[in-house]
Amino acid sequence: MGSSMKEILLVDMDGVLVDIYTTFFKLHEQETGQKLNLKDIAGLLEEEAFKNQRKWVSLPGFFRDLPVMPGSREALHKLNDRYKVIVVSLATEFPFCLTDKQLWMHDNFPFISWKQLVFCGDKNIVKADIMIDDHFKNLDHFDGLTILFTQPHNMLIKDTRHKRVDSWEEIEKLLI
Amino acid sequence: MGSSMKEILLVDMDGVLVDIYTTFFKLHEQETGQKLNLKDIAGLLEEEAFKNQRKWVSLPGFFRDLPVMPGSREALHKLNDRYKVIVVSLATEFPFCLTDKQLWMHDNFPFISWKQLVFCGDKNIVKADIMIDDHFKNLDHFDGLTILFTQPHNMLIKDTRHKRVDSWEEIEKLLI
Repeated sequence: MGSSMKEILLVDMDGVLVDIYTTFFKLHEQETGQKLNLKDIAGLLEEEAFKNQRKWVSLPGFFRDLPVMPGSREALHKLNDRYKVIVVSLATEFPFCLTDKQLWMHDNFPFISWKQLVFCGDKNIVKADIMIDDHFKNLDHFDGLTILFTQPHNMLIKDTRHKRVDSWEEIEKLLI
Repeated sequence: MGSSMKEILLVDMDGVLVDIYTTFFKLHEQETGQKLNLKDIAGLLEEEAFKNQRKWVSLPGFFRDLPVMPGSREALHKLNDRYKVIVVSLATEFPFCLTDKQLWMHDNFPFISWKQLVFCGDKNIVKADIMIDDHFKNLDHFDGLTILFTQPHNMLIKDTRHKRVDSWEEIEKLLI
Protein backbone atom coordinates (compact mmCIF):
# COMPACT_ATOMS: atom_id res chain seq x y z
CA MET A 1 0.00 0.00 0.00
CA GLY A 2 1.50 3.36 -1.01
CA SER A 3 2.01 5.96 1.65
CA SER A 4 -0.60 8.16 0.00
CA MET A 5 -3.20 5.50 0.85
CA LYS A 6 -2.41 5.44 4.54
CA GLU A 7 -4.75 7.04 7.03
CA ILE A 8 -3.35 10.15 8.70
CA LEU A 9 -2.92 9.74 12.47
CA LEU A 10 -2.36 12.87 14.57
CA VAL A 11 -0.48 12.27 17.82
CA ASP A 12 -0.23 14.92 20.54
CA MET A 13 2.99 15.52 22.50
CA ASP A 14 2.35 16.79 26.06
CA GLY A 15 0.32 14.30 28.06
CA VAL A 16 0.42 11.70 25.28
CA LEU A 17 4.03 11.17 24.10
CA VAL A 18 5.49 13.33 26.88
CA ASP A 19 4.95 12.33 30.52
CA ILE A 20 4.67 15.94 31.65
CA TYR A 21 2.92 15.38 35.01
CA THR A 22 5.84 13.54 36.64
CA THR A 23 7.92 16.71 36.18
CA PHE A 24 5.06 19.00 37.30
CA PHE A 25 4.73 17.04 40.58
CA LYS A 26 8.49 17.17 41.15
CA LEU A 27 8.86 20.90 40.45
CA HIS A 28 5.82 21.72 42.58
CA GLU A 29 7.31 19.89 45.55
CA GLN A 30 10.71 21.55 45.01
CA GLU A 31 9.24 25.04 44.89
CA THR A 32 6.52 24.81 47.55
CA GLY A 33 7.50 21.87 49.77
CA GLN A 34 4.02 20.50 49.13
CA LYS A 35 3.79 16.90 47.91
CA LEU A 36 0.68 16.63 45.73
CA ASN A 37 -0.82 13.35 44.58
CA LEU A 38 -3.21 12.40 41.84
CA LYS A 39 -6.28 12.75 44.09
CA ASP A 40 -5.39 16.37 44.89
CA ILE A 41 -5.39 17.46 41.27
CA ALA A 42 -7.87 15.17 39.52
CA GLY A 43 -10.18 17.24 37.36
CA LEU A 44 -8.09 20.41 37.52
CA LEU A 45 -6.46 21.99 34.49
CA GLU A 46 -2.67 21.92 34.62
CA GLU A 47 -2.46 25.63 35.45
CA GLU A 48 -5.04 25.19 38.24
CA ALA A 49 -3.26 22.17 39.71
CA PHE A 50 0.23 23.70 39.71
CA LYS A 51 0.31 27.44 40.36
CA ASN A 52 3.72 27.90 38.69
CA GLN A 53 2.87 25.82 35.61
CA ARG A 54 2.80 28.71 33.14
CA LYS A 55 6.13 29.99 34.43
CA TRP A 56 7.74 26.54 33.98
CA VAL A 57 6.54 25.95 30.43
CA SER A 58 7.71 29.43 29.37
CA LEU A 59 11.32 28.77 30.36
CA PRO A 60 13.85 27.80 27.68
CA GLY A 61 14.93 24.21 28.33
CA PHE A 62 11.79 23.02 30.14
CA PHE A 63 10.63 20.76 27.31
CA ARG A 64 14.13 19.50 26.48
CA ASP A 65 14.44 16.66 29.02
CA LEU A 66 10.96 15.51 29.96
CA PRO A 67 10.33 11.76 30.38
CA VAL A 68 8.76 9.71 27.60
CA MET A 69 5.27 8.30 28.23
CA PRO A 70 5.59 4.57 29.05
CA GLY A 71 5.00 2.34 26.05
CA SER A 72 4.75 5.22 23.59
CA ARG A 73 8.02 4.63 21.74
CA GLU A 74 7.31 0.97 20.99
CA ALA A 75 3.69 1.63 20.01
CA LEU A 76 4.44 4.65 17.82
CA HIS A 77 7.16 2.73 16.04
CA LYS A 78 4.58 0.14 14.98
CA LEU A 79 1.91 2.72 14.18
CA ASN A 80 4.42 4.60 12.02
CA ASP A 81 4.46 1.66 9.59
CA ARG A 82 0.72 1.34 9.42
CA TYR A 83 -0.36 5.00 9.35
CA LYS A 84 0.89 8.33 8.10
CA VAL A 85 1.80 9.60 11.58
CA ILE A 86 1.93 13.36 12.21
CA VAL A 87 3.03 14.57 15.64
CA VAL A 88 1.21 17.83 16.33
CA SER A 89 1.76 20.07 19.31
CA LEU A 90 0.05 23.28 20.41
CA ALA A 91 3.34 25.02 20.96
CA THR A 92 3.37 28.55 19.58
CA GLU A 93 2.03 30.14 22.79
CA PHE A 94 5.50 29.64 24.28
CA PRO A 95 8.12 30.48 21.60
CA PHE A 96 11.07 29.08 23.52
CA CYS A 97 9.56 25.60 23.64
CA LEU A 98 9.58 25.16 19.85
CA THR A 99 13.21 24.21 19.30
CA ASP A 100 13.26 22.25 22.59
CA LYS A 101 10.26 20.19 21.51
CA GLN A 102 11.73 19.37 18.14
CA LEU A 103 15.09 18.33 19.63
CA TRP A 104 13.23 16.19 22.20
CA MET A 105 11.36 14.43 19.39
CA HIS A 106 14.61 13.82 17.54
CA ASP A 107 16.27 12.32 20.64
CA ASN A 108 13.36 10.18 21.81
CA PHE A 109 11.54 9.28 18.58
CA PRO A 110 14.32 9.29 15.96
CA PHE A 111 12.13 7.31 13.54
CA ILE A 112 9.74 10.29 13.27
CA SER A 113 11.20 12.63 10.66
CA TRP A 114 11.01 16.42 10.60
CA LYS A 115 8.45 16.06 7.81
CA GLN A 116 6.06 14.51 10.34
CA LEU A 117 6.09 17.41 12.83
CA VAL A 118 3.59 20.25 13.25
CA PHE A 119 3.86 23.01 15.85
CA CYS A 120 0.82 25.26 15.79
CA GLY A 121 -1.58 27.43 17.73
CA ASP A 122 -4.83 25.75 16.67
CA LYS A 123 -5.20 22.08 15.74
CA ASN A 124 -8.46 22.65 13.90
CA ILE A 125 -6.68 23.53 10.68
CA VAL A 126 -4.93 20.15 10.40
CA LYS A 127 -6.72 17.57 8.26
CA ALA A 128 -6.41 13.92 9.23
CA ASP A 129 -8.35 10.73 9.92
CA ILE A 130 -7.55 9.94 13.56
CA MET A 131 -6.53 12.17 16.48
CA ILE A 132 -4.99 11.07 19.80
CA ASP A 133 -5.04 13.88 22.37
CA ASP A 134 -5.65 14.52 26.07
CA HIS A 135 -7.61 17.78 25.59
CA PHE A 136 -11.26 18.08 24.65
CA LYS A 137 -10.56 21.47 23.01
CA ASN A 138 -8.58 19.63 20.34
CA LEU A 139 -10.75 16.53 20.00
CA ASP A 140 -14.22 18.12 20.06
CA HIS A 141 -14.00 19.81 16.66
CA PHE A 142 -12.07 17.05 14.91
CA ASP A 143 -13.76 15.41 11.98
CA GLY A 144 -12.66 11.78 12.39
CA LEU A 145 -11.94 9.09 14.98
CA THR A 146 -11.01 10.75 18.28
CA ILE A 147 -9.03 9.03 21.02
CA LEU A 148 -8.88 10.65 24.48
CA PHE A 149 -5.71 9.83 26.40
CA THR A 150 -6.44 9.83 30.13
CA GLN A 151 -4.58 12.49 32.08
CA PRO A 152 -5.41 13.97 35.51
CA HIS A 153 -7.13 17.03 34.04
CA ASN A 154 -9.64 14.95 32.03
CA MET A 155 -10.08 11.86 34.22
CA LEU A 156 -13.29 12.95 35.96
CA ILE A 157 -15.15 13.93 32.81
CA LYS A 158 -17.77 11.49 31.58
CA ASP A 159 -17.77 11.56 27.80
CA THR A 160 -19.15 9.38 25.07
CA ARG A 161 -17.93 11.25 21.98
CA HIS A 162 -14.33 10.10 22.18
CA LYS A 163 -12.76 6.68 22.76
CA ARG A 164 -10.94 6.89 26.09
CA VAL A 165 -7.64 5.05 26.54
CA ASP A 166 -5.44 4.83 29.64
CA SER A 167 -2.21 3.62 28.05
CA TRP A 168 -0.28 3.20 24.83
CA GLU A 169 -0.93 -0.53 25.04
CA GLU A 170 -4.63 0.27 24.63
CA ILE A 171 -3.91 2.50 21.63
CA GLU A 172 -1.94 -0.28 20.02
CA LYS A 173 -4.79 -2.74 20.51
CA LEU A 174 -7.27 -0.24 19.13
CA LEU A 175 -5.34 0.78 16.00
CA ILE A 176 -3.29 -2.25 14.97
CA MET B 1 -19.71 38.02 9.74
CA GLY B 2 -18.43 35.69 12.46
CA SER B 3 -14.83 34.58 12.31
CA SER B 4 -15.97 31.01 11.70
CA MET B 5 -17.42 32.17 8.37
CA LYS B 6 -14.17 33.68 7.11
CA GLU B 7 -12.16 31.94 4.44
CA ILE B 8 -8.85 30.54 5.66
CA LEU B 9 -5.84 32.18 3.99
CA LEU B 10 -2.43 30.49 4.32
CA VAL B 11 0.54 32.83 4.03
CA ASP B 12 4.10 31.57 3.66
CA MET B 13 7.03 33.20 5.47
CA ASP B 14 10.34 32.88 3.53
CA GLY B 15 10.10 34.53 0.15
CA VAL B 16 6.63 35.94 0.85
CA LEU B 17 6.59 37.76 4.22
CA VAL B 18 10.37 37.50 4.66
CA ASP B 19 12.66 39.13 2.10
CA ILE B 20 15.22 36.34 2.37
CA TYR B 21 17.11 36.95 -0.90
CA THR B 22 18.50 40.35 0.11
CA THR B 23 20.34 38.61 2.95
CA PHE B 24 21.42 35.67 0.75
CA PHE B 25 23.03 38.09 -1.74
CA LYS B 26 24.78 39.96 1.07
CA LEU B 27 26.13 36.84 2.82
CA HIS B 28 27.27 35.33 -0.48
CA GLU B 29 29.30 38.44 -1.29
CA GLN B 30 30.76 38.54 2.24
CA GLU B 31 31.84 34.91 2.13
CA THR B 32 33.01 34.58 -1.49
CA GLY B 33 33.72 38.14 -2.66
CA GLN B 34 31.41 37.40 -5.59
CA LYS B 35 28.61 39.89 -6.21
CA LEU B 36 25.69 38.00 -7.74
CA ASN B 37 22.71 39.64 -9.35
CA LEU B 38 19.23 38.47 -10.19
CA LYS B 39 20.21 37.37 -13.72
CA ASP B 40 22.89 35.04 -12.33
CA ILE B 41 20.49 33.07 -10.18
CA ALA B 42 17.15 33.25 -12.00
CA GLY B 43 15.64 29.79 -12.18
CA LEU B 44 17.97 28.23 -9.63
CA LEU B 45 16.79 26.82 -6.31
CA GLU B 46 18.10 28.74 -3.33
CA GLU B 47 20.62 26.02 -2.48
CA GLU B 48 21.82 25.97 -6.10
CA ALA B 49 22.18 29.74 -6.28
CA PHE B 50 24.05 30.16 -3.00
CA LYS B 51 26.40 27.31 -2.15
CA ASN B 52 26.37 28.08 1.60
CA GLN B 53 22.59 28.48 1.84
CA ARG B 54 21.95 25.32 3.88
CA LYS B 55 24.70 26.27 6.32
CA TRP B 56 23.22 29.76 6.82
CA VAL B 57 19.64 28.62 7.44
CA SER B 58 20.83 25.99 9.95
CA LEU B 59 22.50 28.57 12.19
CA PRO B 60 20.69 29.79 15.32
CA GLY B 61 19.86 33.47 14.82
CA PHE B 62 19.74 33.48 11.00
CA PHE B 63 15.96 33.95 10.83
CA ARG B 64 15.81 36.43 13.71
CA ASP B 65 16.64 39.67 11.87
CA LEU B 66 15.72 39.23 8.20
CA PRO B 67 14.06 42.15 6.36
CA VAL B 68 10.30 42.28 5.88
CA MET B 69 8.98 41.95 2.31
CA PRO B 70 7.97 45.42 1.05
CA GLY B 71 4.25 46.10 1.44
CA SER B 72 3.55 42.87 3.31
CA ARG B 73 2.85 44.39 6.71
CA GLU B 74 0.24 46.84 5.44
CA ALA B 75 -1.43 44.27 3.19
CA LEU B 76 -1.52 41.50 5.78
CA HIS B 77 -2.98 43.88 8.33
CA LYS B 78 -5.94 44.46 6.00
CA LEU B 79 -6.22 40.81 4.99
CA ASN B 80 -6.26 39.82 8.66
CA ASP B 81 -9.63 41.56 9.06
CA ARG B 82 -11.15 39.99 5.99
CA TYR B 83 -9.79 36.43 6.24
CA LYS B 84 -8.80 33.90 8.87
CA VAL B 85 -5.07 34.31 8.24
CA ILE B 86 -2.71 31.45 9.13
CA VAL B 87 1.01 31.99 8.65
CA VAL B 88 2.52 28.61 7.80
CA SER B 89 6.22 27.90 7.39
CA LEU B 90 8.09 24.76 6.39
CA ALA B 91 10.46 25.07 9.33
CA THR B 92 11.04 21.76 11.07
CA GLU B 93 13.98 20.73 8.85
CA PHE B 94 16.08 23.27 10.78
CA PRO B 95 15.17 23.03 14.49
CA PHE B 96 17.01 26.18 15.53
CA CYS B 97 14.95 28.36 13.21
CA LEU B 98 11.67 27.63 15.00
CA THR B 99 11.97 29.98 17.94
CA ASP B 100 13.71 32.60 15.76
CA LYS B 101 10.87 32.54 13.25
CA GLN B 102 8.21 32.94 15.90
CA LEU B 103 10.03 35.85 17.57
CA TRP B 104 10.47 37.49 14.13
CA MET B 105 6.72 37.22 13.50
CA HIS B 106 6.01 38.72 16.90
CA ASP B 107 8.34 41.68 16.23
CA ASN B 108 7.31 42.40 12.66
CA PHE B 109 3.65 41.30 12.53
CA PRO B 110 2.45 41.86 16.12
CA PHE B 111 -1.20 41.73 14.96
CA ILE B 112 -0.76 38.04 14.04
CA SER B 113 -1.30 36.05 17.23
CA TRP B 114 0.42 32.81 18.22
CA LYS B 115 -2.87 31.05 17.43
CA GLN B 116 -2.33 31.94 13.75
CA LEU B 117 1.09 30.29 13.38
CA VAL B 118 1.97 26.85 11.98
CA PHE B 119 5.51 25.47 11.71
CA CYS B 120 5.53 22.15 9.94
CA GLY B 121 7.38 19.76 7.64
CA ASP B 122 4.63 19.28 5.05
CA LYS B 123 1.99 21.86 4.14
CA ASN B 124 -0.31 19.29 2.56
CA ILE B 125 -1.91 18.46 5.89
CA VAL B 126 -3.20 22.01 6.47
CA LYS B 127 -6.75 22.65 5.32
CA ALA B 128 -7.61 26.11 4.02
CA ASP B 129 -9.22 28.01 1.15
CA ILE B 130 -6.38 30.12 -0.26
CA MET B 131 -2.60 29.63 -0.23
CA ILE B 132 0.09 32.25 -0.98
CA ASP B 133 3.50 30.65 -1.48
CA ASP B 134 6.62 30.91 -3.65
CA HIS B 135 7.15 27.13 -4.04
CA PHE B 136 5.32 24.84 -6.44
CA LYS B 137 5.85 21.90 -4.05
CA ASN B 138 3.44 23.60 -1.63
CA LEU B 139 0.96 25.01 -4.16
CA ASP B 140 0.64 22.06 -6.52
CA HIS B 141 -1.24 19.77 -4.12
CA PHE B 142 -3.37 22.46 -2.52
CA ASP B 143 -7.08 22.14 -2.91
CA GLY B 144 -8.13 25.79 -3.27
CA LEU B 145 -7.06 29.13 -4.78
CA THR B 146 -3.28 29.18 -5.19
CA ILE B 147 -1.22 32.36 -5.48
CA LEU B 148 2.41 32.09 -6.61
CA PHE B 149 4.63 34.86 -5.25
CA THR B 150 7.42 35.59 -7.72
CA GLN B 151 10.90 34.86 -6.42
CA PRO B 152 14.13 34.24 -8.37
CA HIS B 153 13.83 30.44 -8.12
CA ASN B 154 10.37 30.37 -9.75
CA MET B 155 10.54 33.36 -12.13
CA LEU B 156 11.41 31.42 -15.29
CA ILE B 157 8.71 28.79 -14.92
CA LYS B 158 5.67 29.19 -17.16
CA ASP B 159 2.62 28.05 -15.23
CA THR B 160 -1.11 28.37 -15.63
CA ARG B 161 -2.32 26.52 -12.54
CA HIS B 162 -1.52 29.26 -10.07
CA LYS B 163 -2.16 33.00 -10.08
CA ARG B 164 1.24 34.67 -10.21
CA VAL B 165 1.81 37.92 -8.29
CA ASP B 166 4.95 40.07 -8.13
CA SER B 167 4.14 42.16 -5.07
CA TRP B 168 1.96 42.47 -1.98
CA GLU B 169 0.10 45.31 -3.73
CA GLU B 170 -1.06 42.76 -6.30
CA ILE B 171 -2.18 40.37 -3.56
CA GLU B 172 -4.17 43.16 -1.95
CA LYS B 173 -5.90 43.96 -5.24
CA LEU B 174 -6.65 40.30 -5.82
CA LEU B 175 -8.06 39.47 -2.39
CA ILE B 176 -9.67 42.65 -1.09
